Amino acid sequence: MQNKNPKPIGIFDSGIGGLTVVKEIKRFLPGEDLVYFGDTARAPYGIKSSDTVKIYASEITSFLIKQNVKMIVVACNTVSSLALEYLRKKFSSIPIIGVVEPGVRAAINSNKNKRIGIIGTVATINSHTYENLLLKKDPSLKIFEKPCPLFVSLVEEGWESHKVAELVAEEYLSYLKKSKIDTLVLGCTHYPLLKPVISKVMGDSIKLVDSAEETAILIKEIILKNNLSEKKQRKGKITCWLSDRSLFFIKAAERLLDQNIRILQKRF
Amino acid sequence: MQNKNPKPIGIFDSGIGGLTVVKEIKRFLPGEDLVYFGDTARAPYGIKSSDTVKIYASEITSFLIKQNVKMIVVACNTVSSLALEYLRKKFSSIPIIGVVEPGVRAAINSNKNKRIGIIGTVATINSHTYENLLLKKDPSLKIFEKPCPLFVSLVEEGWESHKVAELVAEEYLSYLKKSKIDTLVLGCTHYPLLKPVISKVMGDSIKLVDSAEETAILIKEIILKNNLSEKKQRKGKITCWLSDRSLFFIKAAERLLDQNIRILQKRF
Repeated sequence: MQNKNPKPIGIFDSGIGGLTVVKEIKRFLPGEDLVYFGDTARAPYGIKSSDTVKIYASEITSFLIKQNVKMIVVACNTVSSLALEYLRKKFSSIPIIGVVEPGVRAAINSNKNKRIGIIGTVATINSHTYENLLLKKDPSLKIFEKPCPLFVSLVEEGWESHKVAELVAEEYLSYLKKSKIDTLVLGCTHYPLLKPVISKVMGDSIKLVDSAEETAILIKEIILKNNLSEKKQRKGKITCWLSDRSLFFIKAAERLLDQNIRILQKRF
Repeated sequence: MQNKNPKPIGIFDSGIGGLTVVKEIKRFLPGEDLVYFGDTARAPYGIKSSDTVKIYASEITSFLIKQNVKMIVVACNTVSSLALEYLRKKFSSIPIIGVVEPGVRAAINSNKNKRIGIIGTVATINSHTYENLLLKKDPSLKIFEKPCPLFVSLVEEGWESHKVAELVAEEYLSYLKKSKIDTLVLGCTHYPLLKPVISKVMGDSIKLVDSAEETAILIKEIILKNNLSEKKQRKGKITCWLSDRSLFFIKAAERLLDQNIRILQKRF
């Protein structure tokens, strides 16, 4: 079969969160080469202003385009919420996929009772991007939003199973428990790592939507539709660029992804 | 009396932590004008590498020198631990004061049983700067160190008095409780805001050393010794430069400092 497009897929996040998206892309598209950028020198993004997030995302997108990628995946809910339209206008020659639209699609598919919860960083929740996109698809929905800033710190401390994580989850999620939602969107790429504790607090009947899987499915659709597929038999390579050398990132990548990764550094 | 040196004092931190130092400087030197820089676009520093912290600190020091300051106060334990000597060599024309040396002086003065604990960010603790400086002053000391990364997130979430803060403190401090220290250095400018919970967990008999006050005393000594004093009768002005406009910073500054502050923005 013809080798359609051997260029890599570009992916970025402020730090390690986007690795949950990388994992799903490798599951659905194992032959594709990936170039990942983690902005560890300026992470986290979730407490920063929309202007600053746009500047950082724009620098990284330019850099990935120079790495000759065939598409860009914004594997960060904060950037997807605050800067996706801005990036698409500025870099119109390349497909740019965010994690919010796939998350919205998955939430609509899962939801039955018209009540959907969204959790994310302060910047993501304050942007109301999830709420606006959901209501555009179905104005009869009732949306309940809650920022959960400590969740990222808990994951970065490796305390996903600690009793502190449960206490924090109880505090943040009590409002959503009362709201009678049947679907909760994990609107931050760190949160899938907290699924067990979120599920314990919310109850098993609440469907947790993790946009990583849905994003990988969408990428596969776009790649097949546009003949961008690599069609290699071998396992695709992963190259990681970091703005700050971070042992924590390297350990998390080794834990999450079952393959060797080339790590390089690029400062802005 | 002659007006000796009307130039402002320059102070910087990655974000809001350094405001605890500003508060003490205003108490000891109320007439001095202050120019503060908070690197909110790249905060926090405590998880970043020494190389990256040096680059950021160097950019900010250059910027403050251009603001015509008479001295620089590094109101951040991470920068003071990782980059103070580097900054002093690079900017040798201006006095540069960190928070670690005053913290060490206060710890030695407070300690009786030769056992001292240090808590701080991962970067501060991994640098062992506190330990090295303490042992240089008194090689017979026993030093016990523990990084407490979630403390910063708890303060930034405003959860200083929340039961989560107590549970996190119990987890982090259990090692130090067993170590029979009589003095605990709060080696991060955010931590003084957690004094009540740290004191509750450690017990009233443990002296908590907050380097903010000791730093202000040292600055006053240097200013008097070098005839740098402003000697104004009026209340000194505070100008705050932020790399990212942050409502959270502005609210914290209003809460901590009892005066109007001019807020400006500077990106690197």
